[in-house]
Amino acid sequence: MSKEFPGYRGKALQLLKKEKAEIGDIIHIKKDKEVYEGVLIPRSEYGDDKHIVIKLKSGYNIGVEITHATQIKKIGVGAKPAFTPPPLPKQKPDLPKVAIVSTGGTIASRVDYRTGGVRPALTASDLYSVVPELSEIATIDAKIIFSLFSENITPKHWTKTAKVTAKHIENGVAGVVVAHGTDTMGYTAAALSFALQNLPVPVIMVGSQRSADRPSSDAATNLIGAVRAAANAPFAEVAVAMHETVSDKTIIFHRGTKVRKCHTSRRDTFKSINTTPLARMKNGQIEMLIKNYRKRSSSQKLILKPNFNEKAALVKFYPGLNPNIIEWYVNEGYRGIILEGTGLGHVGKYCFSTIRNAIENNVIVAMTSQCIWGRLGMNVYDQGRDLLAIGVVPLEDMLPETALVKLMWVLGQTKDIAEAKSLLTTNVANEISPRTQAEETA
Amino acid sequence: MSKEFPGYRGKALQLLKKEKAEIGDIIHIKKDKEVYEGVLIPRSEYGDDKHIVIKLKSGYNIGVEITHATQIKKIGVGAKPAFTPPPLPKQKPDLPKVAIVSTGGTIASRVDYRTGGVRPALTASDLYSVVPELSEIATIDAKIIFSLFSENITPKHWTKTAKVTAKHIENGVAGVVVAHGTDTMGYTAAALSFALQNLPVPVIMVGSQRSADRPSSDAATNLIGAVRAAANAPFAEVAVAMHETVSDKTIIFHRGTKVRKCHTSRRDTFKSINTTPLARMKNGQIEMLIKNYRKRSSSQKLILKPNFNEKAALVKFYPGLNPNIIEWYVNEGYRGIILEGTGLGHVGKYCFSTIRNAIENNVIVAMTSQCIWGRLGMNVYDQGRDLLAIGVVPLEDMLPETALVKLMWVLGQTKDIAEAKSLLTTNVANEISPRTQAEETA
Repeated sequence: MSKEFPGYRGKALQLLKKEKAEIGDIIHIKKDKEVYEGVLIPRSEYGDDKHIVIKLKSGYNIGVEITHATQIKKIGVGAKPAFTPPPLPKQKPDLPKVAIVSTGGTIASRVDYRTGGVRPALTASDLYSVVPELSEIATIDAKIIFSLFSENITPKHWTKTAKVTAKHIENGVAGVVVAHGTDTMGYTAAALSFALQNLPVPVIMVGSQRSADRPSSDAATNLIGAVRAAANAPFAEVAVAMHETVSDKTIIFHRGTKVRKCHTSRRDTFKSINTTPLARMKNGQIEMLIKNYRKRSSSQKLILKPNFNEKAALVKFYPGLNPNIIEWYVNEGYRGIILEGTGLGHVGKYCFSTIRNAIENNVIVAMTSQCIWGRLGMNVYDQGRDLLAIGVVPLEDMLPETALVKLMWVLGQTKDIAEAKSLLTTNVANEISPRTQAEETA
Repeated sequence: MSKEFPGYRGKALQLLKKEKAEIGDIIHIKKDKEVYEGVLIPRSEYGDDKHIVIKLKSGYNIGVEITHATQIKKIGVGAKPAFTPPPLPKQKPDLPKVAIVSTGGTIASRVDYRTGGVRPALTASDLYSVVPELSEIATIDAKIIFSLFSENITPKHWTKTAKVTAKHIENGVAGVVVAHGTDTMGYTAAALSFALQNLPVPVIMVGSQRSADRPSSDAATNLIGAVRAAANAPFAEVAVAMHETVSDKTIIFHRGTKVRKCHTSRRDTFKSINTTPLARMKNGQIEMLIKNYRKRSSSQKLILKPNFNEKAALVKFYPGLNPNIIEWYVNEGYRGIILEGTGLGHVGKYCFSTIRNAIENNVIVAMTSQCIWGRLGMNVYDQGRDLLAIGVVPLEDMLPETALVKLMWVLGQTKDIAEAKSLLTTNVANEISPRTQAEETA
């Protein structure tokens, strides 16, 4: 493997060296009758020696297999990374102060083709240079705390993010923006909702589905919306700010405990589940969409509860699930299990005995539904009633993902099992919606 | 515990006996200032001795706690089960023959308050008496093969259902209706889609969200729609027939591999994911919604492939997932694992080594997305490419649930791992949608 050509070996490496192509250069590949053009990018360290990977103009990456007939030509030289910040715009001391805490993800980065790494671009000057509009909205204090793809975020990172956010709030900012990869942003939003209580100001999580180097990027629009809300929104809650539709016209704010990533690639991937979103931004104006929300109030004192206990698991039920998986978690010392059951809150009867055994071993077992939408109704059918009688805790209309985060949080607050169960079913951060008329008649 | 009062013990039992109340009777309960009225129903065998459970007029069940102040009065006698079939309507031999195969679930039952059990109501005469319209649509041959809540259905039941359905088709029916609980109907629909190939006639799965004794029941409308489609629809595919909206006006037909239960209680709970539904029925007329579908043709010969191997598991990824769970499945002799990853097809880097170990042990590991909507794009980010290089099989836009069923089916067809992988990524029953223009630009 070569340092200059990360991930390339053997035949592929030889061809690239011969052509003096470097990572970042524009490459023309001819193979039989097919022709490909794009930017040479680094490969996975786990890759074979038979493919060259290029980024097409469309933004998609493809791997081209090398055969005898493959010809490579360098047709353009890679652009050097251009992050020279322009002179900072004049500070406007009367603007609200907003802190941006970056954990990584697409929004916080520009792909650096020279290293293949994701280059964090979140110093204040980088930001002002990439999104100059921000300097008209707020004075920004930007800090990188991690540079992680969000699938690598774990409960430990939730704790750290909550603590850093709390620090900023104690220092008197008008609001905090948390930049985060979209993959697990819903989980972290729930975590911050439980960890940051009695908020005086908004905490706005933001991500993007297309990196800033893509023509269709949603990064700037989302970031502007998030900073504007952090600076001025009337609510003081943890919210996720993303595109409402595929158009750039509105940004929607979802409550942190009720939001879920519902599409692999669309810009409007996040949806509020079992509730109306908190607010919408259009032409820079914020409109509240629900009446009962926590109001911004600088006189409130934040309560920080940042601890999570990782000994909680999510088990999704399906036909043929091996019920011994529950036993395994008990044996591994787990203290709680969220079941993602079917329909109104069911699992196969063949799981009852390991569930009962877990509960007898002081493991909390709670129910949610893989339907995603709707509320549990464990009293409707015999088997639901049986599960309640065994001691399974029904979690109303809570998202399975939010329920898992909450259980980790609850187990981080108390060792007393009765207290933990009581906290789990108490509405802490709007994770349980009130029952509506529409539900009864649908 | 008493035979006449299933689930009742101690204080609750005493009170009921004193009042000579029987299961099925209408009970008036007074407790301090609260008053409840409803039908006395049996309790879970796991219940305490402090509650009496009644079914309210609204159809909901509640448990009323007994205190010193609780008074019970019998105010009505329970109706005897009334399944006396009316004289059968005249047979109309020129009508199409439709087989109804019942596996259980809400649609196939009426709650019998005298036993608390679910009473299967699916002899042809029961059906004609409950839904007399059916006798105008088809001559029906109805058989009960199981009486199961669908959360108790396992891959073994898929096999049996496929075999019975095949038998009916070989006997020349115009179509088969499979009545099934809604909780896992999506899984069974996928299973039948793989097991019943080269279909000459439609196989229509049907369920209901409200039992037939509820005023708002969707059972009859759905059943009529399903029988009509089995008798006359132009398509020969496995489909799920349910309400399209909360109104009774249209029935929608979803392809068996692309359908998912998306609400705990709504009548329009089933949705086609990443595709347009197959067809819609309005005023008894069927309109096809997509062009490329398998046409009804009695000259086709069904190919039955009913075997499923249960040594396949679904693992949903989340922040803090214990990666040793994958090792556990390998040690238990599992031959395949479907990952329900995040976003475009990711899991935390901390899972890579157990995944690689599983693959090195000849376990198939394949990727789907918990987003539910959208397609994988494992070439977009480094970690996705790493997973591909390790040998994880990307499953395009396949539903995680369908992917699990398909993996069980694939492992039931071949022991050769290369052949299994190839079959897993081959489009067998429209489980993979073709890429669309809209996807690229969203």
